[in-house]
Amino acid sequence: MASKYVSLQNLKFTLNRVHQAHEMSHYEYFKDYDEDAINMMIDAAKQFSDTYLFPFYEDMDRNEPELEDGVVKVHHSVKPLLEAMAEGGYIGAGAPAEYGGMQMPSALSVALGFIMSAANNGAMGFSGLTAGAANLILTFAKEEYKEKYIPNMFAGKWQGTMVLTEPQAGSSLSDITTTAKPIGDGKYRLTGQKIFISGGDYDAVENIIHLVLARVEGAPKGTKGISLFIVPKYRIEENGDFTFNDVTPAGIYHKLGQKGTPAMHLMFGENDDCEGYLVGEENKGLSYMFQLMNEARILVGLGGCAIASAAYYASLEYANERPQGRRLNDKDPDQPQTLIVNHPDVKRMLLLQKSIVEGGFSLVAECAKYWDYTRVLEGEEKEKYELLLEILTPVVKTYPSEMGIVSVSNGLQVLGGSGFCKDFPLENYYRDIRIYPLYEGTTGIQSMDLLGRKVTMKQGKAVKYLFAEVNKDIEAAKTYPELSKYVKILEEKLQVLQSVTMKLIGIAMKGNIELFLSDANLYMEFFGTIAVAWQWLKQATTAKQILLTENPQGEDLKFYESKIHTMKFFFAYEVPKTLGLAQRLMDDEVLTIATEREVAV
Amino acid sequence: MASKYVSLQNLKFTLNRVHQAHEMSHYEYFKDYDEDAINMMIDAAKQFSDTYLFPFYEDMDRNEPELEDGVVKVHHSVKPLLEAMAEGGYIGAGAPAEYGGMQMPSALSVALGFIMSAANNGAMGFSGLTAGAANLILTFAKEEYKEKYIPNMFAGKWQGTMVLTEPQAGSSLSDITTTAKPIGDGKYRLTGQKIFISGGDYDAVENIIHLVLARVEGAPKGTKGISLFIVPKYRIEENGDFTFNDVTPAGIYHKLGQKGTPAMHLMFGENDDCEGYLVGEENKGLSYMFQLMNEARILVGLGGCAIASAAYYASLEYANERPQGRRLNDKDPDQPQTLIVNHPDVKRMLLLQKSIVEGGFSLVAECAKYWDYTRVLEGEEKEKYELLLEILTPVVKTYPSEMGIVSVSNGLQVLGGSGFCKDFPLENYYRDIRIYPLYEGTTGIQSMDLLGRKVTMKQGKAVKYLFAEVNKDIEAAKTYPELSKYVKILEEKLQVLQSVTMKLIGIAMKGNIELFLSDANLYMEFFGTIAVAWQWLKQATTAKQILLTENPQGEDLKFYESKIHTMKFFFAYEVPKTLGLAQRLMDDEVLTIATEREVAV
Repeated sequence: MASKYVSLQNLKFTLNRVHQAHEMSHYEYFKDYDEDAINMMIDAAKQFSDTYLFPFYEDMDRNEPELEDGVVKVHHSVKPLLEAMAEGGYIGAGAPAEYGGMQMPSALSVALGFIMSAANNGAMGFSGLTAGAANLILTFAKEEYKEKYIPNMFAGKWQGTMVLTEPQAGSSLSDITTTAKPIGDGKYRLTGQKIFISGGDYDAVENIIHLVLARVEGAPKGTKGISLFIVPKYRIEENGDFTFNDVTPAGIYHKLGQKGTPAMHLMFGENDDCEGYLVGEENKGLSYMFQLMNEARILVGLGGCAIASAAYYASLEYANERPQGRRLNDKDPDQPQTLIVNHPDVKRMLLLQKSIVEGGFSLVAECAKYWDYTRVLEGEEKEKYELLLEILTPVVKTYPSEMGIVSVSNGLQVLGGSGFCKDFPLENYYRDIRIYPLYEGTTGIQSMDLLGRKVTMKQGKAVKYLFAEVNKDIEAAKTYPELSKYVKILEEKLQVLQSVTMKLIGIAMKGNIELFLSDANLYMEFFGTIAVAWQWLKQATTAKQILLTENPQGEDLKFYESKIHTMKFFFAYEVPKTLGLAQRLMDDEVLTIATEREVAV
Repeated sequence: MASKYVSLQNLKFTLNRVHQAHEMSHYEYFKDYDEDAINMMIDAAKQFSDTYLFPFYEDMDRNEPELEDGVVKVHHSVKPLLEAMAEGGYIGAGAPAEYGGMQMPSALSVALGFIMSAANNGAMGFSGLTAGAANLILTFAKEEYKEKYIPNMFAGKWQGTMVLTEPQAGSSLSDITTTAKPIGDGKYRLTGQKIFISGGDYDAVENIIHLVLARVEGAPKGTKGISLFIVPKYRIEENGDFTFNDVTPAGIYHKLGQKGTPAMHLMFGENDDCEGYLVGEENKGLSYMFQLMNEARILVGLGGCAIASAAYYASLEYANERPQGRRLNDKDPDQPQTLIVNHPDVKRMLLLQKSIVEGGFSLVAECAKYWDYTRVLEGEEKEKYELLLEILTPVVKTYPSEMGIVSVSNGLQVLGGSGFCKDFPLENYYRDIRIYPLYEGTTGIQSMDLLGRKVTMKQGKAVKYLFAEVNKDIEAAKTYPELSKYVKILEEKLQVLQSVTMKLIGIAMKGNIELFLSDANLYMEFFGTIAVAWQWLKQATTAKQILLTENPQGEDLKFYESKIHTMKFFFAYEVPKTLGLAQRLMDDEVLTIATEREVAV
């Protein structure tokens, strides 16, 4: 088993130095989170993960839960994990103190989530979902519901879920058919089937609080007729007793990865006795759900680079211990073998991983900080950060998920044949991370969201804000001559991005939305690569400043030099991919639109 | 379960029309294999696979063999499979008739192998290894050994293996330490450990014939002191009795994929009673083994696109059956949902798969034909095809392996969340194919072989032959104006490849081999993409010719139009990737060479 899965030094550098997360403590709401508090919480999360998460990673994968006699029995580590999570305050970390939360800034909580996801990504899902569901109740539900559900959710006794997908609708939420019939007093009777419900049923919690999208009888078709309901597995009676609420597990999915986390097929109201409690107003459910969805999307991106982090350190450890072959300029078989870390191709695979892991996390932290600003600012400033968050959310969900797969695959490759074997954790990370481009809206959905909604919203206002942010960091980088080459590349790529965007918007303005969005996926890859290049320039600028002013030594010196080196690597090996993407995006040849005279694929 | 895993029409088109495989029948040795025979054998292999391979694919994965009490029990389908393989003549297909073979041209046998690997890639490994090992014995071993081992190997009663890797050496064969002590009469006593031996021990065959690399005592260090031995699990006494030959299974690997095929850790001579029989001369073992390795490398590439084929048809079937959402220019929720095949992003993922599967197979068939020519030609013509095969072998091994992973991952993505679940075979293909960039020399090894050996061998003679072949096909394409755009692109890319190659050779000539090869992996990606672009232009030229002269109708018309469409797709979406690769390869910034003052990765 590999021993290291995350670099605390990198997390602290990214939060405290690159993104100045402690600035949040200047706001009353976040006042407790100065740099010392941030560092302390990071250290504590690592200790927590070493105790409750990392040791069970392999065993959870090997002992998958089954649905037997209507009960899903999860791994024995889940119950103590949830109790400890609650005790550490992690489940309610982001919530206001008045509801038992810690008012933690997201810029910090993503670092804690990164550590925990790197330690055991599947196990993290339980509390992550509960936190998201609880926050949704806190934002939109009646006070009565908050009091009824939140304390036990934050206490790790009740699981929260998000319940959207139906067998016949998949990603097309406008086609969901689960129905809700009003029975008075804000109560509804629900009937329908839902699939792919993570944590949807299991035996280590007392109750499951589902947040369910459904249609009130007679609601408009499409997404405008969707409402949101709280649907507990057990109704809580006046006296505190539990009554089964007719939510039945119809099946458990057996999956490629994240095997320890049960994904359920659920039946609501099979015996016409399933009560749901409306959240907010009827027919506005989808907009509420999007708070949770957007939060979840950032956490998916976070999870992607966290798994890639664990894979990176496992492969780095192997590369630093495994002798094999000789350096190519000195192939004398009488000499001892060299460590494989010294082979350029292995070093390339390691640097690629590092660039994705740390570049991806820096982008997550950037978004988290925007998120925090939306909570403490008002007016135009608040709108600015909301728009920045809007445009980056699909990107921060997608880049670490898609490139995280590439990263983990390179980690596996570093181990050679051993990477394919279960003696090392790489194959497990490789299986787990494959869900990330599917979770919470596939890459295709995210890409259409980015190009079709976010880029064009408010006459491109979000893009303008984003470019302003990038340009601010470019200006800072210009202080250091060693960075000028990369400043120039990034400036040039931003121009190409603008040209590509204008070209595509031209198609949209002619009304052909299908053509406009047909290569949205490539646009996303382009956009994501530039976004991460920006983060690397930003990190290198900070590292350069520290090198010049703080005279770091030893391992610290290596750390900062490696930051600049990895930035160079990303610009040399990853940024050039935008050339091919831009060529295709500027090309008018139509090849993927279905035609009357169909050409078989 | 998906029902289609391969297109026979595509195999026949590629063999008969694109590569004119039946031309081989003009040579006496291959005279039985005219077009009718080729088509008949393809149909028979499909029937065979439908009976003995495809139905057991999932079950073999779910019931992994274990090593218990020294015995490895494989899936119950393996024994009947091997018997049927033998009866069909498949194990000895490529061997001369005098040894019970069918003298089948490789250009045909790769099509049969493609079908069988698409049906059940792991199960195909058993007979594939036996065939390779038997061919090695036929080429280099004494007549006595041929008579002793070949009949039972071709009969599917004895398994053949290739035994190279050792725990401390991995890919660095110069460091193997298994020793062979001569005991007279061409016999040796072997001692050592070997790992990752596919089919290395199991209960469905009577004997296992290992082909083992080892060092004769006192042999020179490095690769010049390696000899090749036949080492049966059971020695065959004069009277035909079996005596255990001290080859002991030390462990079985549990793997990410290809779970049905046992990969073994073996101990040779634990009790100092393991006999080996020298093949050919002492210290020349590695050169003999390379016959098998080169053959195996082509078959790995074949397997890569075969798995991608199965994944492609599974995802295509899903896309053609699954309604979800609406086309973007007509999003009325009152209308029924559209099939997902009509979404541009899904069509893109399908076309990407098709372009890799069919482009990859065409390159395999090209190589197979070269291989056949080396067997029937003499002198300079023979050398030409040998060199063409030399230069393309690492490419045909690598492109379908690496891009096959991308292809299968896109297939999985087409299914959305269902792709991650075990209800569909995509997750299984995704696990299986991950071994292909590791098998028989990793992508890193292949890339160094391509750039470091093949490109430079005989003053670049192999490259010159290859360019001549490509240019011949470019000339043929010029007949059709619709293809001129793609002709121009390919011509331009060949020039860039030449510039990149010259630049890199310049570094080699200054003596810095490590720097020369540091980005060999990117060079491989560049080279492979162009090689497959060539195959697509070749296929499109043939399709165009058929469309203009044979007036195909209905499904045939669609087939040929789709060929041209997919060629366009490959040139629009895949070929532009060479832009970024070329930029990096022409860049002088050194980032992956280990330095004295190490920058931590």
